[in-house]
Amino acid sequence: MNAAGTDAGERGGGAAPDGAHARVAGAVGGPHHDGSALYVSNERPGLGETVTVRVRVPRGWAPGGAMDAGAADAGARGAGTGVDAVWLRSTPDREPRWAQARRLGEADGWDWWEATLTAENPRTGYRWLLLGAAGAAGHGGRAWLNQGGLSTLEPLDAEDYALLATPAAPAWLAESVMYQVFPDRFARSAAADAQETPEWAIPAAWGDPVDAVMPGRSQQFYGGDLDGIREHLDHLVALGVDLLYLTPVFPAASNHRYDATSFDRVDPLLGGDEALARLVTAAHERGIRVIGDLTTNHTGDRHEWFRAGHGHPEAAEAAFYLFDDDADDYVSWLGVPSLPKLDWRSPELRRRFIEGPDSVVGRWLGPPFALDGWRIDVANMTGRHGAVDLNAEVRRGIRRTMLEANPDTVLLAESTNDAAADFQGDAWHGAMTYPSFTRPLWGWLSEEAGPAAPEPWFFGMPGGIPSLDGRDFVEQHLRFTAAYPWRIRIGNMNALDTHDTARFATHARPGAVPVALGLSLALPGVPVVFAGDEFGLTGADGEASRTPMPWGLPVLGAYPELIAARRAHPVLARGGMRWLHVGADAVVFVRESAEASVLVFASRAATSPLVRGVDAAGIGPGADAATAPDLIAAIGEVALTRADGALRLTAGGPAFAMWALPGIRTP
Amino acid sequence: MNAAGTDAGERGGGAAPDGAHARVAGAVGGPHHDGSALYVSNERPGLGETVTVRVRVPRGWAPGGAMDAGAADAGARGAGTGVDAVWLRSTPDREPRWAQARRLGEADGWDWWEATLTAENPRTGYRWLLLGAAGAAGHGGRAWLNQGGLSTLEPLDAEDYALLATPAAPAWLAESVMYQVFPDRFARSAAADAQETPEWAIPAAWGDPVDAVMPGRSQQFYGGDLDGIREHLDHLVALGVDLLYLTPVFPAASNHRYDATSFDRVDPLLGGDEALARLVTAAHERGIRVIGDLTTNHTGDRHEWFRAGHGHPEAAEAAFYLFDDDADDYVSWLGVPSLPKLDWRSPELRRRFIEGPDSVVGRWLGPPFALDGWRIDVANMTGRHGAVDLNAEVRRGIRRTMLEANPDTVLLAESTNDAAADFQGDAWHGAMTYPSFTRPLWGWLSEEAGPAAPEPWFFGMPGGIPSLDGRDFVEQHLRFTAAYPWRIRIGNMNALDTHDTARFATHARPGAVPVALGLSLALPGVPVVFAGDEFGLTGADGEASRTPMPWGLPVLGAYPELIAARRAHPVLARGGMRWLHVGADAVVFVRESAEASVLVFASRAATSPLVRGVDAAGIGPGADAATAPDLIAAIGEVALTRADGALRLTAGGPAFAMWALPGIRTP
Repeated sequence: MNAAGTDAGERGGGAAPDGAHARVAGAVGGPHHDGSALYVSNERPGLGETVTVRVRVPRGWAPGGAMDAGAADAGARGAGTGVDAVWLRSTPDREPRWAQARRLGEADGWDWWEATLTAENPRTGYRWLLLGAAGAAGHGGRAWLNQGGLSTLEPLDAEDYALLATPAAPAWLAESVMYQVFPDRFARSAAADAQETPEWAIPAAWGDPVDAVMPGRSQQFYGGDLDGIREHLDHLVALGVDLLYLTPVFPAASNHRYDATSFDRVDPLLGGDEALARLVTAAHERGIRVIGDLTTNHTGDRHEWFRAGHGHPEAAEAAFYLFDDDADDYVSWLGVPSLPKLDWRSPELRRRFIEGPDSVVGRWLGPPFALDGWRIDVANMTGRHGAVDLNAEVRRGIRRTMLEANPDTVLLAESTNDAAADFQGDAWHGAMTYPSFTRPLWGWLSEEAGPAAPEPWFFGMPGGIPSLDGRDFVEQHLRFTAAYPWRIRIGNMNALDTHDTARFATHARPGAVPVALGLSLALPGVPVVFAGDEFGLTGADGEASRTPMPWGLPVLGAYPELIAARRAHPVLARGGMRWLHVGADAVVFVRESAEASVLVFASRAATSPLVRGVDAAGIGPGADAATAPDLIAAIGEVALTRADGALRLTAGGPAFAMWALPGIRTP
Repeated sequence: MNAAGTDAGERGGGAAPDGAHARVAGAVGGPHHDGSALYVSNERPGLGETVTVRVRVPRGWAPGGAMDAGAADAGARGAGTGVDAVWLRSTPDREPRWAQARRLGEADGWDWWEATLTAENPRTGYRWLLLGAAGAAGHGGRAWLNQGGLSTLEPLDAEDYALLATPAAPAWLAESVMYQVFPDRFARSAAADAQETPEWAIPAAWGDPVDAVMPGRSQQFYGGDLDGIREHLDHLVALGVDLLYLTPVFPAASNHRYDATSFDRVDPLLGGDEALARLVTAAHERGIRVIGDLTTNHTGDRHEWFRAGHGHPEAAEAAFYLFDDDADDYVSWLGVPSLPKLDWRSPELRRRFIEGPDSVVGRWLGPPFALDGWRIDVANMTGRHGAVDLNAEVRRGIRRTMLEANPDTVLLAESTNDAAADFQGDAWHGAMTYPSFTRPLWGWLSEEAGPAAPEPWFFGMPGGIPSLDGRDFVEQHLRFTAAYPWRIRIGNMNALDTHDTARFATHARPGAVPVALGLSLALPGVPVVFAGDEFGLTGADGEASRTPMPWGLPVLGAYPELIAARRAHPVLARGGMRWLHVGADAVVFVRESAEASVLVFASRAATSPLVRGVDAAGIGPGADAATAPDLIAAIGEVALTRADGALRLTAGGPAFAMWALPGIRTP
């Protein structure tokens, strides 16, 4: 049915025709499963443990024919013969194993089926097969269901649901709202004023414009420091964020400090070790956790290891890098000589950097610093060069050490493109990545023309900002989340922008910033606010966006309001995720748990879709028409009305709203 | 345009709606690249070598809007603004790198663009980005092209084209036509008559029906032997096959011999080592290569290693298996106790089985046996159990030894479902797998009802044979080939059936067997004939299909005719692969090279699609209307006529035909 699926009435303006939205079609209105507690009895099983898994099927829904997977009317509930049998396929040791599901019964218009699943491997893939009643021709319809969506054709193993039996991230990761700080540009304490400008730096006053061209690009020095951050922690509290991510704080020869000269101490320009300890302590006192940033792919060419190894083939450190035969030349990050690449074949490098509580990885997690985890820079390239690929060994080694040093820590990793293959639960808890959320969001919510014309390059790709409609946005989101285990997906960083990108507001459609922010808070993943976004800052690229904080300006009201809503409704962190409507100008979904649910609406223009499939008690077709769900938050002009057992969601323009719904009843 | 794309006139009868055929839509009629020599200057680069890669774009084709990727009219050539720029994205060390392509010029209606690509890693992924001219809104359209097809949205890394810098399979693999023999059921020599029946066996006369129920299922013993095969090599020559794949020949306690009791000698029941040497020598004299079958996942429970290790924890062999603590129980293949699983953590197991020319893997490749390679049984599970995954180490070790023992050998591996993740060029040359070709082929060409009613299980899956139309067939084919590097894809085994499946003819639509055979010979991959198929044998499952060869019956004429055509046209082995038409009842594609091309047509019912996009010299729009391509082979009623610069292909029913076309001209 159109109302619950891709709305024909909303067509037009999109870049891709409907045939290209197969994942969207398979995600709206039909049978559903995800990795949340509604469907998986134990989200953290041990190896060899058996769990029960459930799938819900709309009453009367049948696979095959006109009501088939991939059709716009995947959610239709006609006089179909229904589902006759449901099977669970898992692939222990990569070989299919079949378990028949039993029908548990019906609740609120859904049939629930249950099967048992054993966590045979660290990652055990599984999927559902729904068989329709056999017709006269001897064939019933069939539908496969995995993270790729519904399909009549066999789906890909990489897109199966995945049960992980490896140690999970601390529960607090998914429940956090992250705030990213680039220390040079956040705030200066009085101590910073007393510092001398280092020899490499070009000093700048706080109000100076950012110089995005080399050498200023990396040498322009505003002199923000850690005590400056500490002095502004109440800003974070007021905003509602509770996880502070600091880009590097080790000494370096640039403003970004991704060219560390040592991992053994905090940059004195930032206040040194004591300032970090003071900051973390003060943050913890306010309920804010703090993670650091490690470059495991490279160091700076002034790093003490590099100086010890360069030209000294007899030194242990000579094996830390990829020097060529005469040691004059070496491999570096994208060919930038100041960023020599590390060679993880060196056991001594591993020992110093990642192995054990006294290694770099371990020691900053203990007293007096007590960092709550790491974000790993250029994780995708780490340990990879030529024929060597030690990435899995390095990332597992990092996490092993963290578990030893302090298991209540998180490990996030930068991998800015299709990252899922490295994020299967063996180490990284979540990805700092852009194709699944950030880039398609920009495509949907950026201006197509006008004064803020798109840059010719977009996140490092030629062609400028793509022009996407809402179905494209969701199709790309589904394409790039399909291969993540649920546990990792809810740990992925949902950023509108970061220190490496233009600011989202630069090219946003009028009124779209709160819509984008709302989606970062309501879709599965860890919301990320890049410091300054809350003031409405703009910036045309990853350099220009590193604007010093404009202290004194008013904060955009949507930030504290929507962040508070996220934190008040934990179902937005861990609840199931089900799409209800995907149109050109609006998307509607629901986050669900047994205790509570939240209905989420986001639009970029005036629109009025009719939404079915919200069958929670008190909301579904059987409910009193006068009952309206409680509004949690609304930005922009938006209204919810009831009509024919469906919900009409009307927006007068760009809008974001959430309503509280009851928890999901199961048989 | 409908004629070149998915033909609206052929709709109806399919299982899935058109929205589910995004890959098909993106594969027909638009820009094209694949890993063949037309597009890649060196298919076997060394690590660090640079190659040139090319993409061809229909003149006037433009990305975006109504002519966009994913649309049925991806091949339209209207007054579009065309393609402004073409970029190549590769991902050395998993980080995107961009290279701008230059336009080489035009030939026969196609624009060709070229870029350079360096083989930085053993597998270097790459894709194209085509940018249209910017319109008034400041945005040009864009289309990404990788093995997933055309997409306006970013595609997945796993589906990128892949340049491999690892040692390639011998060229003869892709050029072979394989013939699979199950030795117990092929032929008995006089020597076999002199053998005594082993204690485990239930003797059967050659004409007895196959007993598909245990214990007969594995113990019924017809007594075929290797000299029996040797005596029938002229049958293989007459058929035209040139690669003989023998299921296991080691001693065992079953008719299938996948429960080896030793890897050190050929089963005396088969004639022993001498018979194997005689067979290989005689085969080589006829230009037929021979590969064996190794079980690396398990042995039989009567294997000499198992006997040495079971209950003898002090023996080296105790570490070859996964005994539980008291050694009474052990892990076995799918819980079958007679097939204990090997534990590849044992260095001694590795030494005996796979390391060096004297290991099991190595020694059978040398004189006097000189096998031409191995097919590895249950390769997907090998080395995988619980938290242990040594699969990559084992497969790489096997190939390393083979390169030492005899590099002119091939290594194929059984992985019956989504296998691509293990087939990225580090070891296996091709997959014995079913979802990419065999299963969708059955879905398209099997009867929907009638006396040969579908089994409730299909290739181990519940639900019987799926009912697919031609678009489903190609969609599934594209879905399950998208993640294979080209070099591996042309080494994958295209089987209608094997010793583990029902026989294709059992449920085939009338007239469909030659169509299926033709597709196995013309699509990229190594065609496989399971011995007996050429006599039209049927068999309802993997046991019943192991029928003794019905010597004396006539061979179906399509077999020698179509196999001869494959071997006479090497472009069918290594040429590029481009879809021209995908409809419910017919598919049309072309295999292309600079030297020659072949047009391929396959139908399951009467149909008459109009096909565009065949723009080779002498065939394209500019050619003389009287010119008709040369027919190579035709089974069934089929005709090719020219109309309006297109080709009309008319079939009166199930048909398969191939025409010779000139080679592709490039600027």
